Amino acid sequence: MRALVYHGPAQTSWDTVPDPVIEEATDAVVRVDATTVCGTDLHIRQGDFPEVKPGTVLGHEAVGEVVETGRQVNHLRPGDQVIVSSVSACGDCRECHDGRYGQCRGGGGWLLGNLIDGTHAELVRVPFADHSTTRRPCDLPLDDAVLLAELLPTAYEVGVRNGHVGPGDTVVVVGGGPVGLASVVVARLYSPHRIIVVDLAGSRLETAARVGADAAESPGKMITELSEGPGADVVIEASGDPDGFLLCTRAVRAGGRIASIGTHGRPTTLHLECLWRRNVTISMGQVDTSSTPWLLELLRFGQLAVAPLVTHTFGLDAMEDAYEVFAHGTGTGALKVVLHR
Amino acid sequence: MRALVYHGPAQTSWDTVPDPVIEEATDAVVRVDATTVCGTDLHIRQGDFPEVKPGTVLGHEAVGEVVETGRQVNHLRPGDQVIVSSVSACGDCRECHDGRYGQCRGGGGWLLGNLIDGTHAELVRVPFADHSTTRRPCDLPLDDAVLLAELLPTAYEVGVRNGHVGPGDTVVVVGGGPVGLASVVVARLYSPHRIIVVDLAGSRLETAARVGADAAESPGKMITELSEGPGADVVIEASGDPDGFLLCTRAVRAGGRIASIGTHGRPTTLHLECLWRRNVTISMGQVDTSSTPWLLELLRFGQLAVAPLVTHTFGLDAMEDAYEVFAHGTGTGALKVVLHR
Repeated sequence: MRALVYHGPAQTSWDTVPDPVIEEATDAVVRVDATTVCGTDLHIRQGDFPEVKPGTVLGHEAVGEVVETGRQVNHLRPGDQVIVSSVSACGDCRECHDGRYGQCRGGGGWLLGNLIDGTHAELVRVPFADHSTTRRPCDLPLDDAVLLAELLPTAYEVGVRNGHVGPGDTVVVVGGGPVGLASVVVARLYSPHRIIVVDLAGSRLETAARVGADAAESPGKMITELSEGPGADVVIEASGDPDGFLLCTRAVRAGGRIASIGTHGRPTTLHLECLWRRNVTISMGQVDTSSTPWLLELLRFGQLAVAPLVTHTFGLDAMEDAYEVFAHGTGTGALKVVLHR
Repeated sequence: MRALVYHGPAQTSWDTVPDPVIEEATDAVVRVDATTVCGTDLHIRQGDFPEVKPGTVLGHEAVGEVVETGRQVNHLRPGDQVIVSSVSACGDCRECHDGRYGQCRGGGGWLLGNLIDGTHAELVRVPFADHSTTRRPCDLPLDDAVLLAELLPTAYEVGVRNGHVGPGDTVVVVGGGPVGLASVVVARLYSPHRIIVVDLAGSRLETAARVGADAAESPGKMITELSEGPGADVVIEASGDPDGFLLCTRAVRAGGRIASIGTHGRPTTLHLECLWRRNVTISMGQVDTSSTPWLLELLRFGQLAVAPLVTHTFGLDAMEDAYEVFAHGTGTGALKVVLHR
C-alpha cells in the first residue's frame, strides 16, 4: 500500500510499504476512506517527538471500512463503517473502566502514528478494535465523521469540560487553529455570555466569527478589553506556545480556569508569585475520546456547526501537498484538511 | 497599645501605637487574647510584599473578645468571644455570596496585617465584623481556636478540597511546615491510602508521623518510592518554593492533582512539554475561610488531632522572640507559635 512515512526530523515521503496485517487477536485492519492532518503530526514531522521512530507511518485520525478482524474482535466485522479514534483503549484496565483511555495501562493510549503505524495510509491496523472504534451511521458524512476521531473530543474533553464552561461565562480561546475553533463550536452548547478568540493571524479571526465567536481579537486588544472587568472565567489554551500560555494567565479572572489543549514542545514560566492569590485552576491533558459517541449524536442532531472547520480536501495520494497547505494555515486559510480515498 | 510594626524590609519593632478605633459602622474592635505567626508574616517582614506599607501592624490570625462595635454590626456585642478570620468579607458582593471571601470585591479580602493594621497587637480593628468573625464556644481552647483563623481553613480549602483528596488516594505533601502538617491532619478525614510528607528537615519529618503521616521522607526517597507505581493521586505543595513546585510535578500521577497552598514569591518553570499529555490539574489559591464554622465543629468532635501543631507559646510582649523561634523552625522545631495576652 501507499503511506506517509516518517524518516527522521523534517523527512517524510509517500512510500510503498507492506500492507498491515492482524498481529493481535484484538486487532482490526481498516481501509482508510478519510483522514486528516493534526498539528501534532506537524510537531512529529519536525522531530519534536523523539518517541516516534523513523519508519513509522504518521496519522492518528481516520474513518473507513473494516476489512479484516482478529478472532477476539467481537463487535466488528468486515464491511462495517467505523470512526477510528486517535486513542486506542484496551478496555480492561482501571483507566479504561473509568473512561480515561488516553492513560490506558493495558497497552493502549495514543499509539497510532506515534508508537505504531498510523492512518496516513491506504490501510491501518487498529489495536483493541472493539474499544478503539465507533460505528459511523450511514447518514453521517465522512468529513464530519473524521472530526470525531480526535478534534471534537479534544475540544470538548480537554477544553470545554476541563475548563467547566458554563452559562454566562466569558470564555477566551487563545489560538484560532482547528482545535481552538472546534472549542468555540462546542463551548456554544453551554450558553456562555461571550467567546473571544485570540490569534495573530487575520484570516483565522475571520473564521472565528463564522464558527460562533462573539469577538476575534489580537492579544493586546483582548487584554485591554478584559482589563475593564474581572477577566475571563475560562481561558482555553489552544496555541501550543509558551507565550500563548502566559497570555492565558493574564486573561483569566481570579477564581477562573485555564484549560490547556495545546500540544507543547517547550516549558513555560508559571508566575506563581502573581497567581497564588488568584485561585486559578490549570488543567492540561491528552484526549480520551470517551465522548465520541455523544458528540456523534450532537452532530446528527445538527447541534455542532462544524462545516467551516474543514477548509480543504485532497485525494489520499496528495498527502504531502495536504501537509504543506495545513502547515502554512495562517497564510492558506487552512483549518482541517481532509484526505479522501 | 503595644503592637508589632513593620518599618520596611527586615525592620520590625514592638512599639507603642494609638489604640484602633471604629472607622466604619461595620467595624468591631477586638482585644487579642491569642494570635500566631504565619509563614506569610515572615515573607512580609523580609519585604516580599511591597503592598504592605511601613507603619503597618502585622498579623492576620487572632482569637479575642469584642470590646466595641460599629452601629451596623448586628451579630456581635462587647464581651463576645470570637475567632477573627484572616480574610474579611463584605458579605454582599457576588464573591461573598458564593463563599469566595478571599476574592471579595466589596472592600474585603485579605486586609489584616496586609492593607490595614493586623493582629500582632493588644487590640485590632476588624472590618465587616459580622462576616469576618466566628463565635468561639467556651469549651474550645484558645490554642485550638486560633488555628481556625487561617491555618486549618487553608489546609482544607486550598489543599485537601482543591486537591480532591479521597478514599484510597496516595497523597504527597511537599513541605512539612505548619500548613503542610495541618493538611495531613485534614486529609486523614478522607481516608487516603497513604500520606507521605516530604521535607529536608529531619525534625519536621518526626512531627509528620505524629500528626498522622504514613511516611516522612526526603525528596529523593519519595521519588524513588513513587517510581514503583503510577505516582501520587494528589500532591499538596506547601513549601512556597519554586523547587518544591517542580518536585510536585515529578510526584503526581497521570490524571492526578497538584494543589498549591504555598505563598510564592518567585516564578517557577512549568514543564508543559512533559505534563500536557499527563492530564494533570494544578490549583492554587488564597483561603476564603468559608469553612471555619465546619472545621470548628470537627475540632469540638475531636476529629482533628491538632495538638502537635502548636509547639511554642509566648506572652504577647515576646512577639519578636516568637518571630525568631518560628523563623528558624527547622532548627527550633517550631511549628505554630501561639502568643497569649
